[in-house]
Amino acid sequence: MERIKVHIAYDGTHFAGYQVQTNERTVQLVIEQALKKMHREDIRIYSSGRTDSGVHALDQVIHFNTRLTLDCSAWHQALQTLLPSDVQVQRVEKVDEQFHARKSAQGKIYRYVVLNQRHYDLFNRQYEWHVMKQVDVGLMKVAAEKIVGTHDFTPFSASKSNVTGDKTRTVNAIDIWEDNGRIVFEVKGDGFLTHMVRIIVGTLVEIGLNKKESTCIDEAFATLDRQKVGMTAPSHGLFLWQVIY
Amino acid sequence: MERIKVHIAYDGTHFAGYQVQTNERTVQLVIEQALKKMHREDIRIYSSGRTDSGVHALDQVIHFNTRLTLDCSAWHQALQTLLPSDVQVQRVEKVDEQFHARKSAQGKIYRYVVLNQRHYDLFNRQYEWHVMKQVDVGLMKVAAEKIVGTHDFTPFSASKSNVTGDKTRTVNAIDIWEDNGRIVFEVKGDGFLTHMVRIIVGTLVEIGLNKKESTCIDEAFATLDRQKVGMTAPSHGLFLWQVIY
Repeated sequence: MERIKVHIAYDGTHFAGYQVQTNERTVQLVIEQALKKMHREDIRIYSSGRTDSGVHALDQVIHFNTRLTLDCSAWHQALQTLLPSDVQVQRVEKVDEQFHARKSAQGKIYRYVVLNQRHYDLFNRQYEWHVMKQVDVGLMKVAAEKIVGTHDFTPFSASKSNVTGDKTRTVNAIDIWEDNGRIVFEVKGDGFLTHMVRIIVGTLVEIGLNKKESTCIDEAFATLDRQKVGMTAPSHGLFLWQVIY
Repeated sequence: MERIKVHIAYDGTHFAGYQVQTNERTVQLVIEQALKKMHREDIRIYSSGRTDSGVHALDQVIHFNTRLTLDCSAWHQALQTLLPSDVQVQRVEKVDEQFHARKSAQGKIYRYVVLNQRHYDLFNRQYEWHVMKQVDVGLMKVAAEKIVGTHDFTPFSASKSNVTGDKTRTVNAIDIWEDNGRIVFEVKGDGFLTHMVRIIVGTLVEIGLNKKESTCIDEAFATLDRQKVGMTAPSHGLFLWQVIY
């Protein structure tokens, strides 16, 4: 038995998220289907965590156990051949059985892209959130510092979140920069609740549009009230950028 | 009655081409549906010409006649609101009744994008043809000069082409350049037969891969035999770039 770790990228546009659900095309499903073709039996894969419907990944990590004896480059080629073109194999490594894609993860980096100009970009429309009105990046940078740190992130999570138990997480950094008409948000943390990055970005954008005061963040952490913070930014601007081990 | 000219861009990925066909989602169909909502009657649109299934456009031109009295900016906004996001209104102008999107066109510019590296680009995969083996751009540039000029382009057209009658066309220029791992082909001509740009690019790429000799082009023009030239490059790397009036 060998344990195989695979770094994958995917275009989330035509997936109902990462995790297998009945009757839906998901990333987990198409990978498990590819592995079933190779093994002629069901192979369960484990990821660093799920992503929502429409969310993309540059560097998602999965692992599985196998009795097949292929070298990494043969695994790479076999998997890419069997996978649809919206899932791309980035790298294959053999790991020892101590490695677990989710349990071994120390943290994650997400990026979120906002296109901040009058007209949307036709050929990138599925990879960025188009915000027409001008967003004040300086205001967002100041507000972001209130989110950085260790907090109970209940107000920044979907009300029907699947996470039960403690919702304390640490956000290590939120970097925001402008690039060619875009505003890029990079959020680094030890773990994320359902919709957490999208609510952080939605809140910051509403602050940058002067629809909300940054004090709403202090109130949200004090009251744990989801209503204090902003909207959930749309899924298609979000990328799982890196899993840190 | 006013005649309205609209410059549109579209992402061809989810269209069965430009022209209306039974039971297919086409660019013409979604624009005529939008106009029907505004006029409460059928409005026929005329384009500079059709594009194949999967082909994109940066600057396609259409016109139609209307009894509505809106200014150009109101037309722009109304159309964009009623159109799906894969068709983008670029510009609206009022023209006199002498203008005809197809008949007034003097020529067209197409661009074709080849990604020439080992791995495909996940987020651009629907907008470029991925060719893994290294293509010799110098060889293609020399061969392209054999295509430039006025010829009977029968060998560079689909065998089941819709064009009847004379197939003499003038290709004014074929420019080829490299840009960030891509090879871009720009073809300018007075008119194009079905699949003509795609067969030109397919032939040049086969020459650049040393699969064909550039003399095949001379033989093709001498014999008018489609078999002499190369493959039809896939539709998704092709963009109608500009219509010249």
